[in-house]
Amino acid sequence: VNERHVGVFDSGVGGLTVARELLRQLPEENLLYLGDTARVPYGPRGGATITRFALELVQFLLDREVKALVVACNSISASAIESIRRLSPVPVIDVIEPTVRAAVAATRTGRIGIIGTVSTVASGVYERHAAALDSDLQVIAQACPLLVPIAEEGLADHAVAHLMAEEYVARFREEAVDVLILGCTHYPLLKPVLADVLGPGVQLIDSAGPTISDLATLLRRRGLERSGAPHHRFCVTDASYKFLQIATAMLGADVSDQVEQVCVELPAGEGLPGCILPDLVPAMV
Amino acid sequence: VNERHVGVFDSGVGGLTVARELLRQLPEENLLYLGDTARVPYGPRGGATITRFALELVQFLLDREVKALVVACNSISASAIESIRRLSPVPVIDVIEPTVRAAVAATRTGRIGIIGTVSTVASGVYERHAAALDSDLQVIAQACPLLVPIAEEGLADHAVAHLMAEEYVARFREEAVDVLILGCTHYPLLKPVLADVLGPGVQLIDSAGPTISDLATLLRRRGLERSGAPHHRFCVTDASYKFLQIATAMLGADVSDQVEQVCVELPAGEGLPGCILPDLVPAMV
Repeated sequence: VNERHVGVFDSGVGGLTVARELLRQLPEENLLYLGDTARVPYGPRGGATITRFALELVQFLLDREVKALVVACNSISASAIESIRRLSPVPVIDVIEPTVRAAVAATRTGRIGIIGTVSTVASGVYERHAAALDSDLQVIAQACPLLVPIAEEGLADHAVAHLMAEEYVARFREEAVDVLILGCTHYPLLKPVLADVLGPGVQLIDSAGPTISDLATLLRRRGLERSGAPHHRFCVTDASYKFLQIATAMLGADVSDQVEQVCVELPAGEGLPGCILPDLVPAMV
Repeated sequence: VNERHVGVFDSGVGGLTVARELLRQLPEENLLYLGDTARVPYGPRGGATITRFALELVQFLLDREVKALVVACNSISASAIESIRRLSPVPVIDVIEPTVRAAVAATRTGRIGIIGTVSTVASGVYERHAAALDSDLQVIAQACPLLVPIAEEGLADHAVAHLMAEEYVARFREEAVDVLILGCTHYPLLKPVLADVLGPGVQLIDSAGPTISDLATLLRRRGLERSGAPHHRFCVTDASYKFLQIATAMLGADVSDQVEQVCVELPAGEGLPGCILPDLVPAMV
């Protein structure tokens, strides 16, 4: 079992920020990364669709016998974490809960900001996790729909990143938050511009560190660690022209001979009579 | 047969610009609109993925016995039109060819600009169609990856639309084109800002008019027209929170009781042994 890969998955390139941290903290683990580049972004979609897509990604990784799963996408975690835990016989590490713990440990004012996709913010998951830790905390959430396309297009240094960062996060300066959770694994790609707009009074909390720390603890506790030279695989559902570029830049190594294009779709319509879902309006956020 | 719907399909809301023109030019036809809001955008994806998704949309419409198909998405047309024509027993109206004809008729300088998604521009389809009509024409193409997310998010009046329009189309002022093809059915949503950046010397050519004129001719020639009060259906693959908003604004009527959420996926992996595609690099644009 120990030789098996750790499965890390995301809607696209964002989860690479978590994968990078895994390579740093656990350099001898085998990584199997899965990015659903054929269907990215997940953030603007309804919870039922995100859950359906996420379970297909999980099934793909379980079929390849991973020893643990890391949900490296906040939109998936916010909508589908319970369904994933029900499906998975191997341990599941969530990207949201460890990050909220880190933010709560870091705040001195008790005022925490969080930015995320539309579906993540609409889910209210950060408010619930924070309230469970300390009911006096104030959590102020802001949806940032254009940041994922900006990150996916590699426009982190472009004026458009600054314009939209100003629009989305400038309010946190006045809201007197001292901690801002980057509630989407794409956002660390935009850290410089977010830090620039927010100024030094606001600490940015990235999910990758706390999430992989939790994974390390779990592997150690269960005796699932491995040692030796690792073997990594990167699976994408579409040969996205940006994936290799961003992966190479982020991981600091040419991974082109480790990338495969794969299909993850399961037969559709199963359990959906006539394929017409009755919950159009409730599913809308 | 005449009573059957005309199937109009797109990756998301963009095709509504074509649907709106159908309702205007052919107000007694039944419209069946299909938007793949669960997998939008198509533009950044590889040709093989776009073709796979597009054939699922076509099959969904054929199963509902449409009398004609309108490909209301330039990315689909650029990558998949031949596969669609092979699959479809009913006539297929393409969004690209009629638009190139309109642009060629409109230009006086013989210099035509075209903006589109990454996959559309990479396909070179506009250059080929223009050369087939007149080999002296000069076609200058520009990919605009952020315009679809901006349109899908309803940000046409936001500063970000102006910033990116300036970035993508300002060059056409110096290139001395007198005609610019809006080579993506989302772009008419951004017409005011594009016109503002380009100034009065450049005429914008929208696909909707020429495409629906071709459809009208086809229905007339084949005796497929219908008359009477129409019945429309709008199918989306995800309960996108923006679809109803944009559809209502564009069509000038509340269509909420005509919208259904549907599944279009066919069993995956068929004909793909092990689901691993060998053409990762060639498929990249």
